[in-house]
Amino acid sequence: VRIGELSRLSGIPAATIKYYLREGLLPPGVSTQPNQAHYADSHLARLRLIRALIDIGGLSINTASKLLAVLDSPELGPWESVGKVQYALSQRHGAIPGPVHDENASRVVDELIARRGWDIRPGSPARRTLTDICATWDRLGHTDMIAALDDYAEAIAAVVAVDIKLITDQSSLAETIETVIVGTVIGDSMISALRQLTQEHVSRAPLEEQRTSQPSASNT
Amino acid sequence: VRIGELSRLSGIPAATIKYYLREGLLPPGVSTQPNQAHYADSHLARLRLIRALIDIGGLSINTASKLLAVLDSPELGPWESVGKVQYALSQRHGAIPGPVHDENASRVVDELIARRGWDIRPGSPARRTLTDICATWDRLGHTDMIAALDDYAEAIAAVVAVDIKLITDQSSLAETIETVIVGTVIGDSMISALRQLTQEHVSRAPLEEQRTSQPSASNT
Repeated sequence: VRIGELSRLSGIPAATIKYYLREGLLPPGVSTQPNQAHYADSHLARLRLIRALIDIGGLSINTASKLLAVLDSPELGPWESVGKVQYALSQRHGAIPGPVHDENASRVVDELIARRGWDIRPGSPARRTLTDICATWDRLGHTDMIAALDDYAEAIAAVVAVDIKLITDQSSLAETIETVIVGTVIGDSMISALRQLTQEHVSRAPLEEQRTSQPSASNT
Repeated sequence: VRIGELSRLSGIPAATIKYYLREGLLPPGVSTQPNQAHYADSHLARLRLIRALIDIGGLSINTASKLLAVLDSPELGPWESVGKVQYALSQRHGAIPGPVHDENASRVVDELIARRGWDIRPGSPARRTLTDICATWDRLGHTDMIAALDDYAEAIAAVVAVDIKLITDQSSLAETIETVIVGTVIGDSMISALRQLTQEHVSRAPLEEQRTSQPSASNT
């Protein structure tokens, strides 16, 4: 199809599609005549993915572009691709101005990683994000949150087990990488929504009922 | 202390502090003379909370303002306060332009809520966010993600159990509400970071090892 038809099918203005082409988010079409190109179903699928990353995932054009570049690099091995995707995504949180990096927070995160037996690179952006979060909690006086990190890490293991199952079920490398991208970007929004729904359900029960449903030391 | 000293202690420019005062994020100081006001430790603590919500949580001034208004309304009951906080926070995801709301996606979310036995208001923003996410996955052809919703919901229950424990451990209503705010806003970033760290650890093991570590049907 021509670009006008691609715009109609996707609901995205032709000027925006041309912008994605210039920025390299969308691969070029096949030139048929000078100043004319034809686009295939794969272009329509790519446009839907771009909009999902930007509209639902809240990514910048720049981050979306880095992710799609990995998807378009079949010469990378599977875990090299997944690693590149994870690093590009961790930098979403790079919006934190003036990171804190207290020594105390670094130690808390290092010890958590050691206790969990995690194999994490020193420069991992997620490690840095978690360090900034711990430093913030420390400053706010929320040491209860820092103390709960192990419980959260344990609970997240079950979430990642579902992630891994989805990823290993893919039949091709391109599908695996797209699943990592979609599962992480949109998956974070999904996890937040499921967490809020569960909290809403629990918060509609009276406070007293919840307090008494906690295991009581006096009953043992 | 005077505003200049508050600026020095917090590291926040006086002009920004005045902006927070005008917007109502920071309660006024105690007037000592015309055009002079004194600020207490509670103002410094509030400034740290404001910066955490905006810098680490990525909230807009507007959303942060709504949350702090709940914190400053002790006349609200506990669960009414928590409900207001959750609704203000769900609207973070309101950045999704042109929500989709496919009938199919609505049905998927309604059925999930019914299966989990969740008591959720029809107008819940988290319900709407999850519906938009399902509609997006449907369009992208990622029905595998939709099929995994029950597994994710089950895994999230363990995360919320940690949330609830932290909330019920607070001794006052103001502390409870602040814990809900900090735990949700910064907590979502923490969960994302823990999920990425766990994925990084798992992804450094060779793919084959992971495939064979999946429980195999032929072993039963």
